[in-house]
Amino acid sequence: MTDSTCVFCGGAGGRVVYDDGRCRVVIADEPFAGFCRVVWNAHVREMTDLIPADRRHLMNVVFATEAALRELLSPHKVNLSSFGNVVPHLHWHVVPRFADDSHFPNPIWGNRIRETPARAVATDFPHRLAVRIAAAEGLVP
Amino acid sequence: MTDSTCVFCGGAGGRVVYDDGRCRVVIADEPFAGFCRVVWNAHVREMTDLIPADRRHLMNVVFATEAALRELLSPHKVNLSSFGNVVPHLHWHVVPRFADDSHFPNPIWGNRIRETPARAVATDFPHRLAVRIAAAEGLVP
Repeated sequence: MTDSTCVFCGGAGGRVVYDDGRCRVVIADEPFAGFCRVVWNAHVREMTDLIPADRRHLMNVVFATEAALRELLSPHKVNLSSFGNVVPHLHWHVVPRFADDSHFPNPIWGNRIRETPARAVATDFPHRLAVRIAAAEGLVP
Repeated sequence: MTDSTCVFCGGAGGRVVYDDGRCRVVIADEPFAGFCRVVWNAHVREMTDLIPADRRHLMNVVFATEAALRELLSPHKVNLSSFGNVVPHLHWHVVPRFADDSHFPNPIWGNRIRETPARAVATDFPHRLAVRIAAAEGLVP
């Protein structure tokens, strides 16, 4: 199941830190520190188009990503979302939020509140994130 | 676990169509047809603060809500999100989106695109939603 016009079929969507064949985690090229996407590899539109075991697996990877980001970046809050209005290929945004980030407390798609630049992350952040997600319990591909 | 200052501890957050003691589904009073919230009843901040069995249960209710909304309203897309930046009490937005709704394809927190009012839903929509969520498979409270 691929769609030749879909950006998530045609490319990873960011720097890959995890891929178990069913889904992948990428660090997104967005102006928010630690912004990750968890992308279902096949071109599927809605969570309820997946069979329950696949849904559960995808959410386990989302939660493993959330846990790793909390451990590494200690965000004030984590924001999770799956829209797919523009790219209808199942993917989750896992976004660590900080009380002084450019949009907080708005969603990052809402109005900008302040001019804060994205915080810097450590150069080994991708590696440390990859290690933690790979070590998460219960991720059986 | 309750917080006396929290709106989701102090009130339902909408019209209740499901409550199994651990979480509830409410129809939100928002200008989007069929906009539901799935609220964890206890005052918990992040998905990864729940034990895995509770996470799984909450997501099963989110997906049962998505399935019921798809069946009843045939949206173009379903949007799922859990932010909690303003109200840090675990809750999910389950939002049926339509290609001609006021914000599509933007997230509903983004810029309004057009002046379309929210579509009307049938007067028995809350009842039909309640019946479908209660009948969903795999919801063991």
